[in-house]
Amino acid sequence: MKANQPAIGIDLGGTNVRAAVVDASGSVLSSYRQPLGAKRDPQSVLDLVCQAAHQAMAQAATPAEELVGVGIGVAAQLRGSSGMVAVAPNLGWREVPFGAMVAKDLGRSVRVVNDLEAICWGEVAFGAAHGFRDVLVVFVGTGVGGGLVLDGQLYQGASGVAAEIGHVKVFPSGRNCGCGGTDCLEAYLGGANLSRRLREEAEAGWSELMTLAKADPAAIHPGLVEQLHAQGDPRAKQLWSELAELFGTVLANSVTLLNPSALVLGGTVLSGCPRLLDLSLVVLRRQALAVALETLTIKPASLGDTAGVIGAADLARKDN
Amino acid sequence: MKANQPAIGIDLGGTNVRAAVVDASGSVLSSYRQPLGAKRDPQSVLDLVCQAAHQAMAQAATPAEELVGVGIGVAAQLRGSSGMVAVAPNLGWREVPFGAMVAKDLGRSVRVVNDLEAICWGEVAFGAAHGFRDVLVVFVGTGVGGGLVLDGQLYQGASGVAAEIGHVKVFPSGRNCGCGGTDCLEAYLGGANLSRRLREEAEAGWSELMTLAKADPAAIHPGLVEQLHAQGDPRAKQLWSELAELFGTVLANSVTLLNPSALVLGGTVLSGCPRLLDLSLVVLRRQALAVALETLTIKPASLGDTAGVIGAADLARKDN
Repeated sequence: MKANQPAIGIDLGGTNVRAAVVDASGSVLSSYRQPLGAKRDPQSVLDLVCQAAHQAMAQAATPAEELVGVGIGVAAQLRGSSGMVAVAPNLGWREVPFGAMVAKDLGRSVRVVNDLEAICWGEVAFGAAHGFRDVLVVFVGTGVGGGLVLDGQLYQGASGVAAEIGHVKVFPSGRNCGCGGTDCLEAYLGGANLSRRLREEAEAGWSELMTLAKADPAAIHPGLVEQLHAQGDPRAKQLWSELAELFGTVLANSVTLLNPSALVLGGTVLSGCPRLLDLSLVVLRRQALAVALETLTIKPASLGDTAGVIGAADLARKDN
Repeated sequence: MKANQPAIGIDLGGTNVRAAVVDASGSVLSSYRQPLGAKRDPQSVLDLVCQAAHQAMAQAATPAEELVGVGIGVAAQLRGSSGMVAVAPNLGWREVPFGAMVAKDLGRSVRVVNDLEAICWGEVAFGAAHGFRDVLVVFVGTGVGGGLVLDGQLYQGASGVAAEIGHVKVFPSGRNCGCGGTDCLEAYLGGANLSRRLREEAEAGWSELMTLAKADPAAIHPGLVEQLHAQGDPRAKQLWSELAELFGTVLANSVTLLNPSALVLGGTVLSGCPRLLDLSLVVLRRQALAVALETLTIKPASLGDTAGVIGAADLARKDN
């Protein structure tokens, strides 16, 4: 039966492309990952994406004609279900018809979703949120992104850009975000922006942080502040407290607005900074509507790096 | 055919109860409203609700057995679809099985929803948001409430308390909200809390406001600040600017998170303070994700006081 045939899931991030052949139970039969090179133009990236897909198919000994569908999660804001990438900041793209390009190259229709939508669907279908019908997934890695499953369905919004929680505005102290705006949550919490701020503060005199980085500004990352926090460093405590207030309040407001049954949290900044995460959850519990908290389950993401390809493959399967 | 028979819609607010017989096209065949008295215990309110329902049925010459269903919107946080009222601050209720009480009295099953959910559904089914599938409705009256229709369906959340936008947190200056928390949007923008603040400020020396109220603190309401704003009063300008920043940012963050196709705004504070509304929309447009704004239509609510009964009746009809 067609529904049991494998599908291919592709995760196109800001650094790597990963392709995997995934069966109907969410098991990864083969996976192939390669870094994006310096050339980020659509044609160069298309070539890498299709190479990765063919490598994964070859590894799983699954010819293209046996695949039930192709799904791609892209770190981008998309235009509805058209496969058109409106803005992909990490790739430097604007208005690229990437879905159509991949479909032409692979010779079959392709479902393009946001990378966090793919991860969210993966975690709901086969991961931490399995069995939950109303789920908010938030990942804090290089950037800050979210995905929503509502009433059991992936919720993409009117034009396909729902759940952009990284661009929710926090209090106005004026930090710039990669989206061109100021005071987005991501401007404070996203790993790239946070690391830049930490480098600035280390160079401006946060000597404990600079020492921990062995005087190499390029080695500074949020995990070092987590270490300083564990040692009782007052500046680390103040910074984590400030960021927890922001992040916890944004999570709380999302819970108040959406009343999800599950909140799934993941990404390298959160997994690398458990104290920051714990402090944020204290703020969340203080700030969210009490009756919405009563029925909320909070869980760490469970599929790791493969959530995106698993989710993208399963979304493609649902289309066919 | 049963689906064309009228349904009864009831709107139980903090001040009045309104019952209406509504046909399948959303037309109000009869409507009866009465104020709630000083006695707010569940049995007293039940008696008034059932009286109003019988009055409306009598006016429309529609016997109970011809009704296709009964729907009630209550200004309360509910426990899922059970008809259980978890918290109704204006009525002073906690854990009241109001749906079951009304069903027993009227002799038929009853659908109980939040008052803003009923209004939201009314505006989507027959009002300002007709034809839109992803809609956020926000009303600023005595309190601040919201309703969500996502993918064409009323979205109530995992436990029935979604869209409580009045309790989204804003920047921490410490104002108390009727929910027991601090810094909810409603603590700043809700008509009851805002009027209290204005009375305090008038008594503490805002002489222009006190003069406009003819020295009667009880006559102070947000519309007077709107008048002062039109006259260029600097304090009115500062206050409206502060509130617009809060309200516009909360609206923007909701648009960023949900990517709705329509945002419908209503309620006495907004209809009475068009300058405050305009300033808030400027902030919304500055703060929301650009690609989500592109596809957003912003409209005033169009059904007035009858949105709640029309929506409640139609939701009851959908159940049958």
